[in-house]
Amino acid sequence: MRQISIALMGFGNVGKAFAKLLLRKQAILKSDFDLEIIVTGIATGSHGSAINSAGVNLNRALELIESGYPLTTLCENGQNFNGEAFINACSAEFLVESTPLNPFDGQPALSYLKSALNRGKHIVSANKGPVVFGYNELSVLAEKRNKAYFFESAVMDGAPIFSLFREALPAVEIRAFSGILNSCTNYLLDLMANGYSFDDAVLKGQQIGITETDPSADIDGWDASIKVAALSTVLFGIPITPQQVDRTGIRDITAEMIKDATENGEKWKLACSAQRQGNHLLSAVVKPQRVNAQSALYNINGTSSYVVFETDVLPGLGIVETDPGPETTAYGMFADILNIIKKFSYV
Amino acid sequence: MRQISIALMGFGNVGKAFAKLLLRKQAILKSDFDLEIIVTGIATGSHGSAINSAGVNLNRALELIESGYPLTTLCENGQNFNGEAFINACSAEFLVESTPLNPFDGQPALSYLKSALNRGKHIVSANKGPVVFGYNELSVLAEKRNKAYFFESAVMDGAPIFSLFREALPAVEIRAFSGILNSCTNYLLDLMANGYSFDDAVLKGQQIGITETDPSADIDGWDASIKVAALSTVLFGIPITPQQVDRTGIRDITAEMIKDATENGEKWKLACSAQRQGNHLLSAVVKPQRVNAQSALYNINGTSSYVVFETDVLPGLGIVETDPGPETTAYGMFADILNIIKKFSYV
Repeated sequence: MRQISIALMGFGNVGKAFAKLLLRKQAILKSDFDLEIIVTGIATGSHGSAINSAGVNLNRALELIESGYPLTTLCENGQNFNGEAFINACSAEFLVESTPLNPFDGQPALSYLKSALNRGKHIVSANKGPVVFGYNELSVLAEKRNKAYFFESAVMDGAPIFSLFREALPAVEIRAFSGILNSCTNYLLDLMANGYSFDDAVLKGQQIGITETDPSADIDGWDASIKVAALSTVLFGIPITPQQVDRTGIRDITAEMIKDATENGEKWKLACSAQRQGNHLLSAVVKPQRVNAQSALYNINGTSSYVVFETDVLPGLGIVETDPGPETTAYGMFADILNIIKKFSYV
Repeated sequence: MRQISIALMGFGNVGKAFAKLLLRKQAILKSDFDLEIIVTGIATGSHGSAINSAGVNLNRALELIESGYPLTTLCENGQNFNGEAFINACSAEFLVESTPLNPFDGQPALSYLKSALNRGKHIVSANKGPVVFGYNELSVLAEKRNKAYFFESAVMDGAPIFSLFREALPAVEIRAFSGILNSCTNYLLDLMANGYSFDDAVLKGQQIGITETDPSADIDGWDASIKVAALSTVLFGIPITPQQVDRTGIRDITAEMIKDATENGEKWKLACSAQRQGNHLLSAVVKPQRVNAQSALYNINGTSSYVVFETDVLPGLGIVETDPGPETTAYGMFADILNIIKKFSYV
């Protein structure tokens, strides 16, 4: 049986869900893949770190974090390592990163991923920042080091977008994409259609953890723009920044506009789209759109998301993800690891 | 540059679209895959066959067929070969099959595919029949011969279904699926919602080539049942026949029922679904369903199709295919070839 060692950076909701998924999938990894994945290190944002070359006990790590304790007691030498020091100290074949997004320059995650590649680790990241601000650099570096940089969970959680085209659909030319890429605003617009005021919707979103304390990243369309930029960068091969996306958020959607739409059997959605011609980007737009029941966007409800691709061989290929959560993001990272193992013929 | 030889069995709309796609993709195969694919033989249903070990001229073959001539003039020895004789006579690394469906036992395609595997060829098939009636046998034989049996286009044309789970989503447990898998009935129900009588809708469907001369395979839900059986067989690992699907077609959907649905903002759809628990199939159903605008089935219009999978890691993953045609089916076969080449590390 092949043993694979991974280091986890980031142990928030996604990192914890990943650890639980790994525990749950141990049996199938063994039976179907002849594989064991051990976690040789975990670095958290505010609960210290643990490094153990024989494998950190994941059940204990989850218990400690959930009881508010630091991980340091699980560390083989009792020391705490953060950031670069953690990457240097932790011996692992993969770095699996789910640290918070920095929407302005992707740091410090981008530097961590570079360091990990330079130390000969494959990198798996759920982080949109490094995709948007470092995709080309990281890809070139990964190629040079004969390692992989996979990031399925950066857009639409664990729904297969990047892997779909990379693994299943060879020799396709993607000409355009459109859809709903931000769960939070979709949820808020649904609440408003059900009579909530904008402020009450935001409050409710915050209560159930869909909306951030500062909701502007979602509401002003930044999160959607980052995702449009990531898709353009990777799938079109045309790198753009979120700032280059023609962006309008949902702040100006009034209760009256929503009411009028509802009365006419229509809905407001925060629609994303981009179009290319060859290597030229024709448009990249995030903008509220009023749609009727015939639109594919109409019944993308709550926190679900949707993207449809127009390609030279398939006129319309849509992907719908319903009810996402940290578990689906965790699966995207898990799938990335197995797909890297397949690509490099480890098993 | 690696040269791959393929033999085409079936040169109807799909086979011809495949030949055109191959011609169009030659440049990208060369530049991105360092690959040339040559067609060393074509067997048609009623226009003879052509075998040429240096490669049949595809442009000429398409011209001949479109002018109503047999292919025999392109054959290196002027002979005609059919069925098994063609497979034996044509030297090729792949058999690419798109002969007509036999919904009762998958023959003779099933035998052709077995012969091809036994002669050491990879097999790519757009045919649902062999999947439903021979998936296990063909898979075991392929494994034994160290060859592949891929059949992406058997369900939802070229939209990635089988390849999605095989290539992109490792270690997933699929618990259920549902959707709209038959384009013809979906198109007919749309026409009826627009005021066509059942008979007029069938006539119109026949005029534009969506509906067969004998429309019963679609209308009575057989085509949808074959697809449900194929998905259960491959994705659940639970082989069932179309006869085992709880099947109701659209014959009893009256103009009044359609009118009543339309007046209430609803639509009739021929819904497919199946559910499992472990290795036990809980249900496999094809049945008309009246859906409202909140349903994911509601805006699957015309000849589009849709399937949503419920898995242990992604609660809902939907695939939508819009505007399919012979070209999309052809792409599924083309993708199968490239995915087999990747799997066997030819390039």
